[in-house]
Amino acid sequence: MSPAAFQWRVVLVRARNPLNIGAAARAMANFGLRDLAAVAPYDPSWQEARSAAGAEEILKAARATATLAEALDQCSLVIGTTAGARRHLDCDLISLKELPEWLATRCNALASRGAGGLEMAALLFGSEKTGLSNEELSYCHALVRIPTAAECPSMNLGQAVAVCCYELARSGLVSLRTPVARVHHSSPASAQSLEHLFQRACAVLDESGYLKPKSRAATVIKLRRVLLDLGLTNNDVRILGGVLAQIEWRLRHPG
Amino acid sequence: MSPAAFQWRVVLVRARNPLNIGAAARAMANFGLRDLAAVAPYDPSWQEARSAAGAEEILKAARATATLAEALDQCSLVIGTTAGARRHLDCDLISLKELPEWLATRCNALASRGAGGLEMAALLFGSEKTGLSNEELSYCHALVRIPTAAECPSMNLGQAVAVCCYELARSGLVSLRTPVARVHHSSPASAQSLEHLFQRACAVLDESGYLKPKSRAATVIKLRRVLLDLGLTNNDVRILGGVLAQIEWRLRHPG
Repeated sequence: MSPAAFQWRVVLVRARNPLNIGAAARAMANFGLRDLAAVAPYDPSWQEARSAAGAEEILKAARATATLAEALDQCSLVIGTTAGARRHLDCDLISLKELPEWLATRCNALASRGAGGLEMAALLFGSEKTGLSNEELSYCHALVRIPTAAECPSMNLGQAVAVCCYELARSGLVSLRTPVARVHHSSPASAQSLEHLFQRACAVLDESGYLKPKSRAATVIKLRRVLLDLGLTNNDVRILGGVLAQIEWRLRHPG
Repeated sequence: MSPAAFQWRVVLVRARNPLNIGAAARAMANFGLRDLAAVAPYDPSWQEARSAAGAEEILKAARATATLAEALDQCSLVIGTTAGARRHLDCDLISLKELPEWLATRCNALASRGAGGLEMAALLFGSEKTGLSNEELSYCHALVRIPTAAECPSMNLGQAVAVCCYELARSGLVSLRTPVARVHHSSPASAQSLEHLFQRACAVLDESGYLKPKSRAATVIKLRRVLLDLGLTNNDVRILGGVLAQIEWRLRHPG
């Protein structure tokens, strides 16, 4: 594995405490990460964190987005975090210390398909109170568990960010280079282009009557997981997008 | 190395921010450490941290001491921490990720002298503003460096504690057992008994005119380092204590 094959973005989802937002940014700076996004932060907290004296460059450059999909712009790898012993999830559950090995395996698999290079990866942290929701987890390729004691499993948000950034830096998995903005056909599709494809698929399934109002939310979460697990490349997404567009058109213009 | 050969105490030296004290205790609880001491904490902060709602058992059981020597009671290994690239120190400077290996080497050396078993070890964190002073460092067998980015080297205290506790837990170097309270002659002398010996030596050096008022503080720091590097055992301390007592008596009762 190349010593720094990932460009990391830290994504705070629904963070509420300005001190935690500031602490997350500081820990990122300590360990050489620079790209921060906040999904639907509690607005007064976000303003307070960004205007705090000594707020790092990171906070000034950070983006707040309304949705998780927007925050994942350009990322082709999404990793959630949990400090508990959350179970019964559909995605890989990796102990934080094993993350470097998991990433190396992914790198090797991509390289064997000729799709190496620097990959944009997002590390997601849920809100202080509730962590990541099932819907948010359905965007994740894997869930990393910080192995905490059973008597006190829940970590402070800023400390969880610090520990994860430390592990990434410890393993040499932080790159300060800017990823080359070129689309490789056999590279993994970004979270955002997958989400576009998925929304198109949902439109078809709505139109066709497959999705029922009552069970729609739960089914959508399951289907997003199924789509993610396919490991689609940019080329796959282009082809499938065309297929779906054609089906959608036919559904709306019955012969 | 036995998987958990150390019983850890976290020592916060001159901490000022109650949130940091609380955060340090929480990180300890997350990673299975339980023994906290605070040296000369800013008193209102200490009271606030200890009386906070949800303060862990750790904070309730924590001790505040006036001096570092008191906080090191029973510890035979003292490790300082720094997040910067502090140089020109007399003691070993270890990168945090190499601490487990350093500790294993120490364990093996002790075991080869027949002085194994569970060792009480202290991990020191300096104040938010100044870190550890040179005098405080003179109590340390080694200084651990958290490898931070050159552009933003200084870590938040609570996050530094979290990262260090994570590394100890990651490596299986946290023991939840209570150390057996027996004094092994060939075991390393505790920091406190070394300090008693050292104070006795200083009295002799004062009496003999070796220590001059102007340079006394700096000389004492250097001598403490020399004493520490001798790696004295309990037996050594007992013998040297007798020697010093005799010299002291003679100086005061010139023949």
